[in-house]
Amino acid sequence: MEKIDEKENPCIVGLDPYIEHMPKFLREEFCDDSFNSIIELFLKFNKRIIDSISEIVPAVKPQISLYEKYGSEGVRAFERTVRYAKEKDLIVILDAKRNDIGSTANAYAEGFLGKVEMADGSKRTSFNGDFMTVNPYLGHDGISPFLEVCEKDGKGIFILVKTSNPSSGDFQDKELIGGGALFERVAEYVGEISEDLIGDRGYSSVGAVAGATYPKEAEKLRELMPKSIFLVPGYGAQGGGAEDTMPCFNEDGYGAVINSSRGILYAYKRAPYKREFGEREFHKAAGKAAEDMREDVLEAMRKEGKIPW
Amino acid sequence: MEKIDEKENPCIVGLDPYIEHMPKFLREEFCDDSFNSIIELFLKFNKRIIDSISEIVPAVKPQISLYEKYGSEGVRAFERTVRYAKEKDLIVILDAKRNDIGSTANAYAEGFLGKVEMADGSKRTSFNGDFMTVNPYLGHDGISPFLEVCEKDGKGIFILVKTSNPSSGDFQDKELIGGGALFERVAEYVGEISEDLIGDRGYSSVGAVAGATYPKEAEKLRELMPKSIFLVPGYGAQGGGAEDTMPCFNEDGYGAVINSSRGILYAYKRAPYKREFGEREFHKAAGKAAEDMREDVLEAMRKEGKIPW
Repeated sequence: MEKIDEKENPCIVGLDPYIEHMPKFLREEFCDDSFNSIIELFLKFNKRIIDSISEIVPAVKPQISLYEKYGSEGVRAFERTVRYAKEKDLIVILDAKRNDIGSTANAYAEGFLGKVEMADGSKRTSFNGDFMTVNPYLGHDGISPFLEVCEKDGKGIFILVKTSNPSSGDFQDKELIGGGALFERVAEYVGEISEDLIGDRGYSSVGAVAGATYPKEAEKLRELMPKSIFLVPGYGAQGGGAEDTMPCFNEDGYGAVINSSRGILYAYKRAPYKREFGEREFHKAAGKAAEDMREDVLEAMRKEGKIPW
Repeated sequence: MEKIDEKENPCIVGLDPYIEHMPKFLREEFCDDSFNSIIELFLKFNKRIIDSISEIVPAVKPQISLYEKYGSEGVRAFERTVRYAKEKDLIVILDAKRNDIGSTANAYAEGFLGKVEMADGSKRTSFNGDFMTVNPYLGHDGISPFLEVCEKDGKGIFILVKTSNPSSGDFQDKELIGGGALFERVAEYVGEISEDLIGDRGYSSVGAVAGATYPKEAEKLRELMPKSIFLVPGYGAQGGGAEDTMPCFNEDGYGAVINSSRGILYAYKRAPYKREFGEREFHKAAGKAAEDMREDVLEAMRKEGKIPW
């Protein structure tokens, strides 16, 4: 939250590397069939983006699937991206949506957020993210190992509650006997466990993923999880506008971080950035798009009287 | 299924490396605080186990969290374990429980099962598993990218339906308006999509995870997903017995694979294997435990008249 105040910005950037969307000149620099070229390409792209946005946004959210698809070498690019972002003083949210039970869930929690035990019994950090996303389908056994690590190492999680995709309703919207939809029951659960991990500013380190594409549901969710920060995907590329994200904020103007990934990273491909910057200045296009997104969201916050600065 | 027939065995082994459970003499060999030692330790342990069980079981199921917790180097150990198991002609089920939407789900599907696009546009396999586990909470958009890869590359998935852990009921058992629990609705969905991917033997490449700790639920699930193979965790260490797994099989004696992880890998620590083998012969203890598990499950199958061989 300090970072949100410092930048006066609740908008964050998803670091989602897609080869096919990257500038041609950059792709050509690393054009072969080795996994190593992928690492170099991703790192060069990400570092330039991070340099361009690090003064504007409080946090970045790398999506691990796009790195992990390239196996251990892709994961190396992910690790180096995380490290670089932290060097630039950005909060890092690892979008991993991990889920498992007991000791295997604990392994994810320690690996992504906490410390892992080495062969000699000593402890070291591994990915060392600040936050990560977690899937709740396995129930409390699948969540509590993450809570322990959050408490011990001062980290946070965002639990998937209502996701931004079109078919998120397939199971999340199922109406339950006793009232409410499944996602509301998950929200109630998050509301309960978040009470145990409240920080100085009155917000919990247990947050929720709540898609910007479902503003009506967001209102309910805000009531059920008053102390959770919402990670809000779906702005921009997925069709959610700034107004749609407003129900995710509390009256104090806090309580939500709005993510955009492709809309920022590949802004150089679309109007009005395409003309002003072009592909060689893709990173500047990203910086400008991040500034514009901030303006767009702050404008909507002002209209609602939900702005803390 | 050919491998199940070849070995006359529906039991598989989970390759779950826990440093603290490994033989002391092996830990001492790699006793320092480097990530590289972890790789070497895990590989040495896993290769010995694989050598011991490769003639007995049809498949192995490495749990990625226990590798990934050590970052890119842990993932390298995972990749090399997968490769070694495939060299030994074992089917490899990647227990990753991945979930995301659209292009990010597609990245997991391509990375774990299919082929990934390189910087020059060529395609290569990455993890190259035969099957993987997938979490359904995001709905159909989160599943369909996996189905496409299954069809294109001849691979399979196991969708989490009813997991083996104590609190799996927190959300999976929620009773829905219109009848049935959430897990049954997920099962119906799996039943539907499995119809499109039926193989030569009448079974689908879309399977389900159904915990051995819930035999009653398994009966319902068998009806709802007649053509799916069930991946059944919870045998042994988690408290499920061979009889409890029987409802997961169809009348033809197929349709389920029963997993044990710690019960096999660390058999050397418990009676009766401890006395016969001791820690230096941990791999032989695992081999014997795998044989005993096969006998235990086949005996239960015989009693039920559900044995194909």
